[in-house]
Amino acid sequence: MVSFECDYIAGAHPEILKRLEETNMESLPGYGMDHYTASAKDKIKAACGLPDAEVEFLVGGTQTNSVIISTMLRDWEGVIAATSGHVSVHESGAVEFTGHKVIELPAVEGKLEAGAVRKYLETFYSDMTHDHMVFPGMVYISFPTEPGTLYSKAELTALSDLCHEYKIPLYLDGARLGYGLMSYECDLTLQDIARLVDVFYIGGTKVGALCGEAVVFTKGNKPAHFMTSIKKRGALLAKGRLLGIQFDTLFTDDLYFRISRHAIEMAAKIKEIIKEKGWRVYMDSPTNQQLILMTEEEMEELAESVIFDRWGVYDETHTIVRLASSWSTSEEDIKVLANA
Amino acid sequence: MVSFECDYIAGAHPEILKRLEETNMESLPGYGMDHYTASAKDKIKAACGLPDAEVEFLVGGTQTNSVIISTMLRDWEGVIAATSGHVSVHESGAVEFTGHKVIELPAVEGKLEAGAVRKYLETFYSDMTHDHMVFPGMVYISFPTEPGTLYSKAELTALSDLCHEYKIPLYLDGARLGYGLMSYECDLTLQDIARLVDVFYIGGTKVGALCGEAVVFTKGNKPAHFMTSIKKRGALLAKGRLLGIQFDTLFTDDLYFRISRHAIEMAAKIKEIIKEKGWRVYMDSPTNQQLILMTEEEMEELAESVIFDRWGVYDETHTIVRLASSWSTSEEDIKVLANA
Amino acid sequence: MVSFECDYIAGAHPEILKRLEETNMESLPGYGMDHYTASAKDKIKAACGLPDAEVEFLVGGTQTNSVIISTMLRDWEGVIAATSGHVSVHESGAVEFTGHKVIELPAVEGKLEAGAVRKYLETFYSDMTHDHMVFPGMVYISFPTEPGTLYSKAELTALSDLCHEYKIPLYLDGARLGYGLMSYECDLTLQDIARLVDVFYIGGTKVGALCGEAVVFTKGNKPAHFMTSIKKRGALLAKGRLLGIQFDTLFTDDLYFRISRHAIEMAAKIKEIIKEKGWRVYMDSPTNQQLILMTEEEMEELAESVIFDRWGVYDETHTIVRLASSWSTSEEDIKVLANA
Amino acid sequence: MVSFECDYIAGAHPEILKRLEETNMESLPGYGMDHYTASAKDKIKAACGLPDAEVEFLVGGTQTNSVIISTMLRDWEGVIAATSGHVSVHESGAVEFTGHKVIELPAVEGKLEAGAVRKYLETFYSDMTHDHMVFPGMVYISFPTEPGTLYSKAELTALSDLCHEYKIPLYLDGARLGYGLMSYECDLTLQDIARLVDVFYIGGTKVGALCGEAVVFTKGNKPAHFMTSIKKRGALLAKGRLLGIQFDTLFTDDLYFRISRHAIEMAAKIKEIIKEKGWRVYMDSPTNQQLILMTEEEMEELAESVIFDRWGVYDETHTIVRLASSWSTSEEDIKVLANA
Repeated sequence: MVSFECDYIAGAHPEILKRLEETNMESLPGYGMDHYTASAKDKIKAACGLPDAEVEFLVGGTQTNSVIISTMLRDWEGVIAATSGHVSVHESGAVEFTGHKVIELPAVEGKLEAGAVRKYLETFYSDMTHDHMVFPGMVYISFPTEPGTLYSKAELTALSDLCHEYKIPLYLDGARLGYGLMSYECDLTLQDIARLVDVFYIGGTKVGALCGEAVVFTKGNKPAHFMTSIKKRGALLAKGRLLGIQFDTLFTDDLYFRISRHAIEMAAKIKEIIKEKGWRVYMDSPTNQQLILMTEEEMEELAESVIFDRWGVYDETHTIVRLASSWSTSEEDIKVLANA
Repeated sequence: MVSFECDYIAGAHPEILKRLEETNMESLPGYGMDHYTASAKDKIKAACGLPDAEVEFLVGGTQTNSVIISTMLRDWEGVIAATSGHVSVHESGAVEFTGHKVIELPAVEGKLEAGAVRKYLETFYSDMTHDHMVFPGMVYISFPTEPGTLYSKAELTALSDLCHEYKIPLYLDGARLGYGLMSYECDLTLQDIARLVDVFYIGGTKVGALCGEAVVFTKGNKPAHFMTSIKKRGALLAKGRLLGIQFDTLFTDDLYFRISRHAIEMAAKIKEIIKEKGWRVYMDSPTNQQLILMTEEEMEELAESVIFDRWGVYDETHTIVRLASSWSTSEEDIKVLANA
Repeated sequence: MVSFECDYIAGAHPEILKRLEETNMESLPGYGMDHYTASAKDKIKAACGLPDAEVEFLVGGTQTNSVIISTMLRDWEGVIAATSGHVSVHESGAVEFTGHKVIELPAVEGKLEAGAVRKYLETFYSDMTHDHMVFPGMVYISFPTEPGTLYSKAELTALSDLCHEYKIPLYLDGARLGYGLMSYECDLTLQDIARLVDVFYIGGTKVGALCGEAVVFTKGNKPAHFMTSIKKRGALLAKGRLLGIQFDTLFTDDLYFRISRHAIEMAAKIKEIIKEKGWRVYMDSPTNQQLILMTEEEMEELAESVIFDRWGVYDETHTIVRLASSWSTSEEDIKVLANA
Repeated sequence: MVSFECDYIAGAHPEILKRLEETNMESLPGYGMDHYTASAKDKIKAACGLPDAEVEFLVGGTQTNSVIISTMLRDWEGVIAATSGHVSVHESGAVEFTGHKVIELPAVEGKLEAGAVRKYLETFYSDMTHDHMVFPGMVYISFPTEPGTLYSKAELTALSDLCHEYKIPLYLDGARLGYGLMSYECDLTLQDIARLVDVFYIGGTKVGALCGEAVVFTKGNKPAHFMTSIKKRGALLAKGRLLGIQFDTLFTDDLYFRISRHAIEMAAKIKEIIKEKGWRVYMDSPTNQQLILMTEEEMEELAESVIFDRWGVYDETHTIVRLASSWSTSEEDIKVLANA
């Protein structure tokens, strides 16, 4: 039985485990004050082409979204997100838990369109009653999006320009950033993203780490006393080395990009299999997640040899099935799927 | 210059002011422990036909929504509301401030349709990932709705049945309840509403009081230690008499209903004027608020003799204008509008 | 039966009710945009000797504390208060509800001593682990204090200097401000207070109003988008006129000070009665609240002719009894107490 | 240079790393649904002697305290803790962030005394104004305490009886639980604790794990929809296996207890060294943390060969220095300290 359930089915990339083992008995200070964490930050800043960026590590994606959004918004503000955005749907209300509204705008293939956001902002500010409303104080996007699509450089630039025009930060959730950047269809580099957005995170959990996300504040805009705000949210890891060593490894010799590329190659093979088998595609994805439509019967048959994710309800007879590849997907896994 | 800006342009109904004056120097205990408050509660329970209901008074509408929703929801729950609902749009995120999500569903003429809510609930519970989502824990509706429309008895019954089926409370925001109940098109009585919903409030601020809303828990479902929760939210009025005396007066000799009916009669005259003048109606309303579409020029002309509300943005050249009647609207006001 | 239970046993000062009646049918905009509110702000600024101050009105004391503290603190900060402070004890955790800690320091006769606060601040900043702690971001004091004592000009100046040295705002809760300023023992004027603190409120609820507190930001330090933050907390009154007219009246012809002085004169008579009767004083108070110790038997006897407050538990056999005077206390009331 | 700075200076116990490696490429479901997590739960329940207990894993200590306290308290409640408690001092206000007050009572050597808690509860309920206060809804203690002391069985039993009498849960923070249970002076077993408290956590971070705390609900009292509440707080780990495998290893062949015992043995040697060197003890500790008083000069000298923690400010010339042993402390480390 092989699994395409999600991109966090395995432990860590072996190189990471090896480094954890090699450094295991070193005495290091806690809370991210160790030299591995410092080294990881430097490597990430270099990869982003932003020597003056500020990098911080957190444990998981929902935690990161909630910490970033709630420390960057001001009291009277909320965050604009797609109705299909992770913060809108799948975080159990973590943003609202911090006292802020997620202002949901319709998504097109998982993406926020700059035009729709502009329309919202213009209408908001022309509304005489807007002092009684939640001010739009940030734009949240995910890259790749939840259904696996990508913003083009033109689309991201349009959002970036709009946000700067309205002086609100653009925040990019990169839970699967590597799988986006390494997609054959991606026309953005890490440096492009770092330049275009105000804050983003480089996902570790889904790209080879046991846990961990690297937040990059690109414009000297790290919130004051950020460590205290992290602690206040129960998000400060005592053994910060666990995050530092993992990211230091991921950003050594391009490991993060190499393993992301591997997942994309495996995804290409999955797409071929889908085509061959004639499975109905829910949304075409250039990244590591393939969404297809299946009946209960079809799922039961597939479940005999493969583990997959019931991603959502499509209609009364069809479920959206997700087949995800990741850094850990092997050629053998692909073969099992092909024969399923 | 006369005003149709909203239904809270005047002070209190003179009868209320008179009672405040008559009772002014009586020594009374604070925090709603006085006998006027007790009397008001009894009269409201009688009017609702629910001797076992529990009644509490709060100061304003947003405060009431936030207190009720946040004390009745459980940690993992949010409240379903129409995208046009007051809690969704015009409360500056007061529900989110308490840590809970407003789950917005599309409205039809300001109303939530039972069918759409059912669809949402069914989809939610059939979604395998719903433990990662905000659970729907309450349904919020307003009566009349924000644009002035009304639920019919059949519509409210359908929502009530659905909520009971799913065991979640149905909450009715009655900021303008009187204007709804006294509408010529309303087929619901106060007793019907009290029977069909789990909790609702009878608006005072917009129906003759200086301030104040009366919350009715219809099913022995008042949250435990409610007074402490009110205080915790900064919503406990020291001189509870101010609320008690006002509602005691409003529910003596049907004052609440009589002044509401007056507003509806005035609204009928406004509707006639709109018709005569050929103004374009945004949404037909059977209650005290009439929404029409006007250009900037038309508004400038109207503004010479009448104060009105720029309720919202319609399109690039038209604004939604609100003309509201209330208990304080006089025949003279109507004449000025007719001649405007 | 006469009542000395608290200073909010009666309605409003008759002059206030009269003005509410005179202005009742005027059409006025909501949310504090009316001209009475503007006039009240001007009069308060003049009385404070601070033409550039910013004044806002809220409904009640706990609400005001919670709104001010939570909009002025930053994410990583809490507010220092005396263990006996209203925010520490009697607000049901309203400050914590907004996500901020009340850092409690021991009080001496209800007062925070500058020396103790300095010691706390020095220790905090010399603690290597203070990034894991709540930063002290404001100092809260009440004037008069909860047990009725007063800060001297020297004491308040010392706190003011300390706060400025540490660049944290000094906030003064003036729920009973008039009774403090008019005390025979007070060496501070309203203008002194306005000059020495960063933000304070002038209590209306306990000094002649039906409800209402006037917040004064003395240094151009009103939080941005304050109206939206007030609304978000359910604290924005639709009929802002109710607050504006009351404070406009209170600050016309020194009404606020005259009625406060009356309460102090009545308190002096109560103190004489206490002395004559040989009742044991819990804490000597120069303001309108007298705290004495009584056994259950003594309370039962007193309760035959007078209503009073059981303010707290002293020991197993004694209760702290409060006898409060106010603007509404009459000579007749005093006679009843004398004969009790 | 060797470190006695804290008990989280090293990575994980080698046995844990080995198991992480052995299981690394297994495809496992996320969010704690894997069989290692299930096995860990079973082993912990067995070790506690409570087959019906419920066990959940979280990532860190502050997170665990904040999740447990905020999901178990009701709206009107706060948690009683010692002024020196971790939740009172060193969590940056994480409990308050969730809207609840920490009700601080004086500690005696880091411990809450049942008598003092009883006194507080009795006074609270006899106070006529307690509806305006935060209700005591839980008692929080740490074992070992922050300065390293231990509750005796008699002391814990007294607290347990008191809590049950008042029907409020007793919660034990076991960040260093192993070091308490293995102390020569401890007269409590894990099973005693599991029987006496309502909820507690077994600390992993400080006792051999990379991260992770195991929460034990001893009485069928796990909050409903706990997973959703965890997610809402950003505390749900995607790769739950990381926690499951670690605790499964720690509770195999008594590893948790064996490595805790080792730390205690090392602590005994540190205590001897302290005695020999004549260092002044701040508080005598039977567990793995030794607190001593040092001048700046003494610290500078010690710092030449040993890393230690400046735990707190004692007076103007002395700092409280912490020397902590842990599972990773070696005999060689001890020798370096002896020669320092």
